[in-house]
Amino acid sequence: MIAVLKQGTTEAQTQHLIEWLKNQQLDVHISQGKEVTILGLIGDTSRVDMELLGSLDIVETVKRVSEPFKQANRKFHPLDSIVRVGNAEIGGGNFAMIAGPCSVESEEQIIEVATAVKSAGANVLRGGAFKPRTSPYAFQGMKDAGIELLVKAKYATGLPIVTEIMNISTLDLFADVDMIQVGARNMQNFDLLKELGKTKKPILLKRGLANTLQELLMSAEYIMSEGNENILLCERGIRTFETVTRNTLDLSAVTVLQELSHLPVIVDPSHATGKARLVPPMALAAAAAGADGLMIEVHNNPSCALCDGAQSLTPVQFAELSQKVQQIREVIQ
Amino acid sequence: MIAVLKQGTTEAQTQHLIEWLKNQQLDVHISQGKEVTILGLIGDTSRVDMELLGSLDIVETVKRVSEPFKQANRKFHPLDSIVRVGNAEIGGGNFAMIAGPCSVESEEQIIEVATAVKSAGANVLRGGAFKPRTSPYAFQGMKDAGIELLVKAKYATGLPIVTEIMNISTLDLFADVDMIQVGARNMQNFDLLKELGKTKKPILLKRGLANTLQELLMSAEYIMSEGNENILLCERGIRTFETVTRNTLDLSAVTVLQELSHLPVIVDPSHATGKARLVPPMALAAAAAGADGLMIEVHNNPSCALCDGAQSLTPVQFAELSQKVQQIREVIQ
Amino acid sequence: MIAVLKQGTTEAQTQHLIEWLKNQQLDVHISQGKEVTILGLIGDTSRVDMELLGSLDIVETVKRVSEPFKQANRKFHPLDSIVRVGNAEIGGGNFAMIAGPCSVESEEQIIEVATAVKSAGANVLRGGAFKPRTSPYAFQGMKDAGIELLVKAKYATGLPIVTEIMNISTLDLFADVDMIQVGARNMQNFDLLKELGKTKKPILLKRGLANTLQELLMSAEYIMSEGNENILLCERGIRTFETVTRNTLDLSAVTVLQELSHLPVIVDPSHATGKARLVPPMALAAAAAGADGLMIEVHNNPSCALCDGAQSLTPVQFAELSQKVQQIREVIQ
Amino acid sequence: MIAVLKQGTTEAQTQHLIEWLKNQQLDVHISQGKEVTILGLIGDTSRVDMELLGSLDIVETVKRVSEPFKQANRKFHPLDSIVRVGNAEIGGGNFAMIAGPCSVESEEQIIEVATAVKSAGANVLRGGAFKPRTSPYAFQGMKDAGIELLVKAKYATGLPIVTEIMNISTLDLFADVDMIQVGARNMQNFDLLKELGKTKKPILLKRGLANTLQELLMSAEYIMSEGNENILLCERGIRTFETVTRNTLDLSAVTVLQELSHLPVIVDPSHATGKARLVPPMALAAAAAGADGLMIEVHNNPSCALCDGAQSLTPVQFAELSQKVQQIREVIQ
Repeated sequence: MIAVLKQGTTEAQTQHLIEWLKNQQLDVHISQGKEVTILGLIGDTSRVDMELLGSLDIVETVKRVSEPFKQANRKFHPLDSIVRVGNAEIGGGNFAMIAGPCSVESEEQIIEVATAVKSAGANVLRGGAFKPRTSPYAFQGMKDAGIELLVKAKYATGLPIVTEIMNISTLDLFADVDMIQVGARNMQNFDLLKELGKTKKPILLKRGLANTLQELLMSAEYIMSEGNENILLCERGIRTFETVTRNTLDLSAVTVLQELSHLPVIVDPSHATGKARLVPPMALAAAAAGADGLMIEVHNNPSCALCDGAQSLTPVQFAELSQKVQQIREVIQ
Repeated sequence: MIAVLKQGTTEAQTQHLIEWLKNQQLDVHISQGKEVTILGLIGDTSRVDMELLGSLDIVETVKRVSEPFKQANRKFHPLDSIVRVGNAEIGGGNFAMIAGPCSVESEEQIIEVATAVKSAGANVLRGGAFKPRTSPYAFQGMKDAGIELLVKAKYATGLPIVTEIMNISTLDLFADVDMIQVGARNMQNFDLLKELGKTKKPILLKRGLANTLQELLMSAEYIMSEGNENILLCERGIRTFETVTRNTLDLSAVTVLQELSHLPVIVDPSHATGKARLVPPMALAAAAAGADGLMIEVHNNPSCALCDGAQSLTPVQFAELSQKVQQIREVIQ
Repeated sequence: MIAVLKQGTTEAQTQHLIEWLKNQQLDVHISQGKEVTILGLIGDTSRVDMELLGSLDIVETVKRVSEPFKQANRKFHPLDSIVRVGNAEIGGGNFAMIAGPCSVESEEQIIEVATAVKSAGANVLRGGAFKPRTSPYAFQGMKDAGIELLVKAKYATGLPIVTEIMNISTLDLFADVDMIQVGARNMQNFDLLKELGKTKKPILLKRGLANTLQELLMSAEYIMSEGNENILLCERGIRTFETVTRNTLDLSAVTVLQELSHLPVIVDPSHATGKARLVPPMALAAAAAGADGLMIEVHNNPSCALCDGAQSLTPVQFAELSQKVQQIREVIQ
Repeated sequence: MIAVLKQGTTEAQTQHLIEWLKNQQLDVHISQGKEVTILGLIGDTSRVDMELLGSLDIVETVKRVSEPFKQANRKFHPLDSIVRVGNAEIGGGNFAMIAGPCSVESEEQIIEVATAVKSAGANVLRGGAFKPRTSPYAFQGMKDAGIELLVKAKYATGLPIVTEIMNISTLDLFADVDMIQVGARNMQNFDLLKELGKTKKPILLKRGLANTLQELLMSAEYIMSEGNENILLCERGIRTFETVTRNTLDLSAVTVLQELSHLPVIVDPSHATGKARLVPPMALAAAAAGADGLMIEVHNNPSCALCDGAQSLTPVQFAELSQKVQQIREVIQ
């Protein structure tokens, strides 16, 4: 970490700051230039409060030289991590094709969709049981009953399952769930992350709507620092000024995360765009960008043709998409 | 709620949609214009999934006519709410001057600051015990010991206290805390909100970094829908492209929230700007905009002159600010 | 266009508004619901000031039902437009591979790069002569001399050329330029757009850093309304809170623009990411998303190996990329 | 300027970069730490392309130590600048109260409004003649005829006038205009800025919708570098994810700009919020934050009561606001 001092900082102020830093167990290397004084801080800088340091009146700027995340950092773990989710392997060249309905609605529905997406190439089944909703009056999911149906679909098809947790007190319900999802709104629910770090379950960690990629990696670090290294990072769109899509899918996140970290990176084009007709082009784009997997909403509701226009693909559309994704992966290898 | 259908929607599609809406207990009023068909949805539309409806291929746009929040809505509660926090009243012309250190560090520190801010005009004491930190390696606060010290400062000075909760499992520790803060990162931790709704404690609800004002009101609604109406809304800066300040303080939020809701609206200029020298002008601006209160970081650390430049004011600076805030409030009355 | 009136609007206010609208040559269709009054405005609503209308105290919301752009609108021109740039055709299945250096620096440089990118599959040569720079003290490009060198490279290689205009007074210098670029910062320089609309030159119109896709189409409409229909729309990244990349490339813009408009849509991954190593994955992603072309910075500076790390690809990297783009285009057809 | 090199940079790469920097007339001061190498660049770094340097693969980060703006910089000009606009002085404790209609519509209108705002305390008259509009089909202003009417109002009332320029070719029409406005969309129309720098007219320079404060100061520097030092900086709201207001007014910009620059800083709450009822609280907040002036839309249209709800204040509302602004200025002095 380096700190550049402002011109006009007095010798006394500089010494005062150096002492304060040394009290935090840091070595300080001083570089006195003609116009500027630079302090190089050596030691465990991960505990230094960068915002506090940067807000001091005598400090021009503070910059980390080493990233603040360690276990998620590719520098210390150059090989791609491979995460095992049930019988599926994800990362290191193994692609995750996660598919399923937005919400679990009935046994018939979830088994039908599970069967359809499996035969179309999915290797993980998704389905919402606990649903985070902006309004307290909106449908909040089937909860524990939803998880039970997902588990039935798992045993019926052999597909491992992933579903979202919203509250650590419900953890027992996830015993037969193969991967636990942390939603965008909980990406910085640090207490939840720590508790999930104490399990060994694979965690699908979604990027928050307004979180930087470094913050996403720091949230992964929260989980890893408690001992759980089985994490999938998921880009699902960020909030910007543009309103024509629900969120703005940031595909450069795929490459940036893969450079900085060894963890697999997947993309959720369904939530990012909010419109079924944008899902296939964005899914293909994610595959071309080198993503380690996709997470796609697929519904199966022959009685409601209307829903074809919404966020979810039909099984037929998903099967077509799945094939093209495979072809694109062959091009970029 | 109204839904505008796209040109070219067939009669069959329209009927299909209307049936689907009626199945959700809504009356549908059809207005067939020359170029456009508009469906007016009457009934309890708060349960309708607006995003799903809007994402249908045949729907041009969906718009709520009535806001989706009810108990927080000024339409149904025209008078300003007054929230009692210990012996302080906030809202309806009563101003909250909440002050104290970023973190509780020691008994001496918190009592010294509490005494200083009280004599400078504060009517509530703040202090962090559980600290949400981006990094798992950063100081996470004194936790339960921090709350105990806050409570000592409360009994020493008579000031009611507010501190942040991060995990509902720690609720018992907040028995002597007068107001519980929900931080920006937990604004959409819906399970936490619901549990806090079951208490009668005043809640200081901070706006999330990338949340709209309507989403803030919906989060207040989560708390209110469980029976707790004692809520302060807090604007604390949003995340934008500008990096010269930590966040961008959105002061128009004060007026907009006061129009939409009867709940008191306070402003936290310390976290919004991240720099002590920006706190006084933004605090005065918030008062001039009509805020119902301020939340200001004040430290008292004579051994560390450096900290004068950081986010916190000294007690002397706070006392000066407090006087001017009072004068500005007289101007705008 | 529809306007929803607020509950509580009086009959007199409603009549007043209707008269005002009729004075603007509009027919007004009134739909009086139980809770809400909706006015349908029929006629040439493109002249109505939506912001003014929406800001009226009695108006809840205003929504265009028909898009405000006409000539750029796919509804009135269902077939893809094909734009001819020199001997290249772009759009309607014809791909633009635009490549060249950030700035024209010398005759040797531009001819070398032009030769290299042509043999690697480029069909248009780019090169900056007038450079928009944030600082008045930074290099502003070779200007007219730069255009002369570009023209030499055009005649040496047969590639049509594109370069940026910053000031309509320099238009005469662009006589031998095949396509004129309007940069992101000039996307809403309406007077420039109007003047370019009076030429017949193809225009490469870049999206502004904070402009919506609808605003981009309205800027295209400015050019088209003066008679010039030869426009390429270009996504080049938008400004968001994320700082790890220079801008955030919004690839969903490709599909959205192709739905709304018949104009070809190209993508510039070099400016969006600012880093050479992010250019290939984002270029492949753009191709997979269905873009009608790419604009890539390629340099040729054997004396400066350093530059390999910057925004530009080497000719060898570009040739590899060009092949894979072609393969991806075959997959998605 | 300092450049921090990445760990693992070879000696040869470092030397290569140093040579390249020295070729740009810079002295390079090398500081070799244990983990990191820092280059201090000394000399005229305002010409160095920071983005290029920062994008090199071997460079971890680049940071300016001195700001890239010089003439606008308070470091080199510690005293507040005072800008004379006709008979008004602005800055250095002198407040600008700029008021008038959005658009000039008729001689009667502009003289009536001018008379009203003058008697309510305005010292500069505003009025739009050339109007930048998103749509080519919307009313584009009265143009030269509008300027003529403004000049009549100037001679009738004695108020100096300000109006927007969109195209340097119309400069002759501004001979009797006292201050020329550059709108948000033209903030980085660098050729326009340079030409205005060659005049001596005061320039009211508005911040772009997605421009940082440093970019605003660099645009001021464009004007100043050509010899014109008469500039007012204007905050008018930035584009964020929040849609309940037209833009998000960034009032911390006032303090930040006043710290960095000696130029007067004014605030336009009318365009920032887009709603008349938000204008008074935001105007008072701007005054409390220490702004050097305000720019407020005032209309006078007794035949159109509807307009009361839009962006403009009535003369009576403006007079009330003007008084309170004065009182707040007395508090903060």
